[in-house]
Formats: sequence, structure tokens, C-alpha cells
Amino acid sequence: MKRSLKLSPGRSMVTFLFILLASIHSPAQFTSNLISPEISSDNTVTFRIHAPNSDDVQLTGSWMAFNETAKLIKGDTGTWTLTVGPLAPELYGYNFIVDGVNTLDPLNKHIKRDGTWRVENVLFIRGTASDLYEPKTGPKGTVSQVWYSSPTLGMTRRMIVYTPPGYAEGNEKYPVMYLLHGGGGDEEAWPDLGVAPTIMDNLINQKKAVPMIVVMTNGNPDQAAAYTETPVLDNPSRGAAGMANKMFEESLVKDVIPYIEKNYRVKTGKQNRALTGLSMGGLQTMNTTFKYPDMFNYIGVMSMGFADLSAFGIEVDLSERDQQIDALKKADPKLYWIACGKDDFLYESVTTMRKELDEHGFDYTYRESTGGHTWSNWRIYLSEFAPMLFK
Amino acid sequence: MKRSLKLSPGRSMVTFLFILLASIHSPAQFTSNLISPEISSDNTVTFRIHAPNSDDVQLTGSWMAFNETAKLIKGDTGTWTLTVGPLAPELYGYNFIVDGVNTLDPLNKHIKRDGTWRVENVLFIRGTASDLYEPKTGPKGTVSQVWYSSPTLGMTRRMIVYTPPGYAEGNEKYPVMYLLHGGGGDEEAWPDLGVAPTIMDNLINQKKAVPMIVVMTNGNPDQAAAYTETPVLDNPSRGAAGMANKMFEESLVKDVIPYIEKNYRVKTGKQNRALTGLSMGGLQTMNTTFKYPDMFNYIGVMSMGFADLSAFGIEVDLSERDQQIDALKKADPKLYWIACGKDDFLYESVTTMRKELDEHGFDYTYRESTGGHTWSNWRIYLSEFAPMLFK
Repeated sequence: MKRSLKLSPGRSMVTFLFILLASIHSPAQFTSNLISPEISSDNTVTFRIHAPNSDDVQLTGSWMAFNETAKLIKGDTGTWTLTVGPLAPELYGYNFIVDGVNTLDPLNKHIKRDGTWRVENVLFIRGTASDLYEPKTGPKGTVSQVWYSSPTLGMTRRMIVYTPPGYAEGNEKYPVMYLLHGGGGDEEAWPDLGVAPTIMDNLINQKKAVPMIVVMTNGNPDQAAAYTETPVLDNPSRGAAGMANKMFEESLVKDVIPYIEKNYRVKTGKQNRALTGLSMGGLQTMNTTFKYPDMFNYIGVMSMGFADLSAFGIEVDLSERDQQIDALKKADPKLYWIACGKDDFLYESVTTMRKELDEHGFDYTYRESTGGHTWSNWRIYLSEFAPMLFK
Repeated sequence: MKRSLKLSPGRSMVTFLFILLASIHSPAQFTSNLISPEISSDNTVTFRIHAPNSDDVQLTGSWMAFNETAKLIKGDTGTWTLTVGPLAPELYGYNFIVDGVNTLDPLNKHIKRDGTWRVENVLFIRGTASDLYEPKTGPKGTVSQVWYSSPTLGMTRRMIVYTPPGYAEGNEKYPVMYLLHGGGGDEEAWPDLGVAPTIMDNLINQKKAVPMIVVMTNGNPDQAAAYTETPVLDNPSRGAAGMANKMFEESLVKDVIPYIEKNYRVKTGKQNRALTGLSMGGLQTMNTTFKYPDMFNYIGVMSMGFADLSAFGIEVDLSERDQQIDALKKADPKLYWIACGKDDFLYESVTTMRKELDEHGFDYTYRESTGGHTWSNWRIYLSEFAPMLFK
């Protein structure tokens, strides 16, 4: 038997990988033994980047204050290093800034995109506070990219649908949570940055939440799907641009919910529907439930209140507000949950909202957290909201 | 009605976005009006990066030769610019190299990960040759991340399942193509770098391929899923490490196919199964069909031949090769398709394979393309292989 591609016996796996790598076009950076980020047992984290020709390397991460950076120190070999922490258990984002240019960690291929804003490296510190964010062995739900017809918006649009562990194999019907992202985001925000499927798997497997379907839509009415779905970068929507017309809210009620209730094994009726969203998605949650007060029994408004958005072309018809609150009060949803961080730039709008709801004797639950308008908070809010549903 | 969050009326959407942005931790790079990459009507492409403190900025892209880079020119404002092309229609990858550090284009948030190797920016040039890679309006399949039990490998593992347009709404049964990635890749390789769902949508909608289910597995038997599924970067598999034991091939036959045929509306039997893979996946395709010659009627081996992989600890038992070829010949699959690029580093192994198959009078179809061991070729191969199936 002939053997082609003769290789000397001493060659190792590394050789094979090198050959494979050679078939890739890019000049590779051979920083073979470097590790970054390296998490020590005490949760200090060492970051490293090989940049011998650079003059300044900074680190920025989601554990730092806004605009805060930390300087790495250059070693003799041209590798820059910095150890930080110990960091509290959390799912963090970070990146380097090399001579002023935002640069992803070349040694960490785990990257998440935050809408149209940015991409960043992922750093996960294990612990009790982050335990729900970590995939576990055991039953897992299915995450599907589903295209549906939206006559309301005149498009075939994409949403992400989470079906719980056991859905594929069983016959059971499930309640549904509709989970909305914020401005600048898209349908990939909750599954990726929010790790909603992992949180749901863990909550369901730990019997903290009942098994449910979670529907993560694209809340930008001028967008069919995340712009990365279309390889051409033609004028990606900035998301908030479409907030004003409330057409997403219409499409949610007229297109999304009917599609889900037709094509999935779903328990129907108000008592089996929850709606929640963050920031822009919180506004859309308010808009939808004010207009359709009998659609959802569980309502969550995260990091959004009665904000004046007229400067952005979003005119709230305040003449209807009183009757909207009264109508929703009459519909008597089982849960109206408002969550906001003390440092959120929309905190004052939440205070206003609570005051107005109080004036109407409207029953709601308020959850005030530390921190601001962050994914850290929204993951916590989801972890707390989902267990309260459908019980 | 009170209004909180007073903003002066002159403030625009930009202000709102700025406020939102301010809630993100990173110091933002304000290069507001810059566009990169900018594709002109003649398909020349201009790349830009604002790096006033850098001394050298290079560009590397998949249209270039290995190790080739092109130098950007620094302008007065500190923005570096380069116009290249015109480029042929294709789905390209690229990145900058700033003072020697691989750097993603900060103005392009469209990024793809190539297994454990690298992340790169996406550049799509429209045209006839890339038309199948571009999402179109119209019916689309569903792409699902599915976890299944693999007793063979002792893990719950993840695969990506494409169901064709109409699957969710209908009752029809479909044939199945199993589509395997290469060394260093994972189950996200074909959906992302290979844009397999888009190619299949287009082929099916254009009636070039029959509607089928496509199953994209993780071919690394020591890995439950792409390492990015686990936020902790603990010892990510290098993929090829598990090639030797052929356990993936066993799990494909014993775990994956039974799961699919139980939980999806699938036409069963050899005549409704296709198996194809690239590089390592080509080897796994050969291994599987040699051991189970009656499982698949359509077999595609991409960019892999009878290579000597003993140096990587992969010992092929050549004493069985003759009888394996004869057994597969006797099973008489409707299609045995071999595809390789002229410049592929495994080209010689494909020549060897063809010679041995010829000596056995084994019937196969050979497709030789230009180029090498690249995603450009694998997308073309999928576009040509899928239309030949189940007809």
C-alpha cells in the first residue's frame, strides 16, 4: 500500500496543526505558550499580549468603571502582562487598547458581539454568583433561529426560539416568555450576551423555573435580522431608529405570537404568556401591555421607566397614559415587575413611573439592584423574573 | 404628567445612542464618520483604521497569498487607508496587523470565528460567484442548536440541525445530509464560515437541490460542543487530537443518526442519507463509509485522500483497505464524490486515493478545483454536492 504525504515520524500533532494553519491565509502570530486570560485559583486574572513594537497597552473590562483602563507592563520579550483582581464571579467582557486602538485579545477566541456597538472578549469567573451562567451537563433546551413572515412589517424576519429540555422528545405543551433586547441590540443579544438559554436550562433543571419556551425577537422594526445575517454591511439599523412607530409592538402581537402559538406546542391564553424587556425592550413591553392589557399575565420592565424620549422623535401620547394604566390595572396581570439599578441613567424615569403607578393604585413589584444599565444586571433580572412565572 | 429625564429638544438620536454607549464600560473610539470596509461599485474596497499612535498598519485577507500583507498609508488625521481590488465576488475574511498585532477592524462588527484558530472580519463582495452565499428574501430554513445524548462518547453533545423551508409548517418527511467540519473546527464551522444554511436555502428555493435536513455535528470526540459554549477556557480541544480513535465515527452511526431519525420527520434508509466532510471530516467520511458501507447512498470526500497520518498518532489499518474498498464497491453507493483543489497540501493523497480506487474498479466522481485547503473551496463543493443528492 502506498502512502502519500510522507511525514517524518518525529512530527507531532503540532506539525499537523501547523500544516493546516499554513493553509489559512493570515500570517500567524506565534505566541505559542502564552495564555490569556489566565485565571488563578484565587480568581486573580493575568492578561498577556505579545506586542513588541507597541508603546502602550491598556486593558478595559466590564468590572471597571466607565472610561477606566489599566496599563499592562512590557517584558523583555515584548509580551505585555497585567494581573488584576481577584475578580468576583461573573461573566465579563474585556479588550485591550494597543496604542489607542481597540484590540481583541489574540489569545482568546471567545468573543461576543454587543449589537452594533462593539465586540469584546469573554472572561468567565466561576462561582456562586455566576453559576447560573455556566453550561452544565444534563438536559438542555434547543436554541433555534426561526424565520417567520411578518405581514405587519412587510418582511420575513428572524427570531431565536428556546424550547426547554424534553421538548423535542415529548408531547407536553408549554407557556411562553417573550424576551426583548435593548436599543442597538438584535435577536442575538439575549442568547449571547444574556446567555438566556443557559440561564433557563439551569433554572429549569434546578426546578427554580417551570419549563417554558422563550422567544427572543428582533425589536428593530426596520431590520429583518441581525445585520451579521446579511453579509453585506449596507446601512445596518441602529436599532433605536425604529422605536418611535411602535410597529414592532404591533408585529409582536399580530405576527410573532400567532406564529409561535401555531407552530409550537404552546399553552395559549393570557395566563401562559409573559413579556419582558430591557431598556428599549422595556419601553416596548410597556407599549405592548398598555395597548393590549389582556395579552400577558406576567410583565417585566427592566431598566426603563416613564422617560421623556421626545428628543429622539419618540412622542409618548401622555393623554392616554392615565386610561392605559387604569385599563392595565383592570386587566389585573398576576405580576408587573419593575427592575432597575441604582446607577442606571434611566433611574429617575423609573422613579417617575412608580410614582404615577402608585397614584393609580396600580399593583407592581419593584426590584432595585446595584449597578447600572448593564448586561450583568439584565442577566440577574432574568434569573429572578423567570422563576416567578406560570406558577 | 411629569416627565423625567429632561433632555433639551435639540438633542438627536446620536445623543440617545451616546447615553446608551456611556453605559457600556469601554472607552469608545469616536471615529464616527469613518467607514471600513467601503465597497465601491467597481468592487474596489477601501479599508480604514484610526490609529494615530501606530507606526505600521498592514492588511491581510483571504484574497491574498499566504503570508502576504498590504501596507496601509497614514493620513494627516491619523487614519490609515488602503484601497484594494477590484475583488472578485466572494465571502472573504480579513484583519489588520497593527505594529505586528493581529487586530480586527474596529469599524466592522461582522466577525467569524474559525475554530480555535482565529477570528476574522467578514467582507462580502456581491456577484454571480457569491450569489449562493447571500441571504435572500423568501422562505428560509430553521437552524437549531440541538443537544443530544451520546452514550458512545459518554456526553451530552451539541449539533446544529438545519431543517428546510416549510419543515415547521408541514408534515413532509425529508432526506438527511450529514456535513462534517475539519480539524480545529467545531459544529459552528459549517453554519458560520461555510454559510451552509444560506447555501441550502438558496439551492432549495432555486429548485437546484431537493429540500433536505442538514446535520452539522461536532467531529471532535473529546468535545461536547464548541468551546465558546463553555465560558471557561479550560483546555479547549484542538480537534484533531481525537481523530485517531474513530469514536466520532461510531457516535455518528450509533447516536447521531438514531437521534435524528427518531426526533425529526426523516425519510430513513440508505437512499435517504448523505455523508460528506472536509479535511478531517473527509477522513471521518471515509472511515464511516468503509466501516458501514450500507449506511449512505451519497458520499462526498472533500480535501482529503489516502494520507499517511501515522505521524499524528493516526494509524490507518491498511491491511483492511482492500476489503473495505471492495465492500463499499459491492454496496454500490449512488454517488462517491471526491473534490480537491490543485494547490491543496493534501492533493497528493487524493491522487493516491484515486489510483487505489481505480485499481479496484471502484466508481467515483472526481472534481478538481483551483485553489487549496480553503473555505472558499468548501462552500463551492457544498454548492455542487447538495444538488446531486436524493434524485
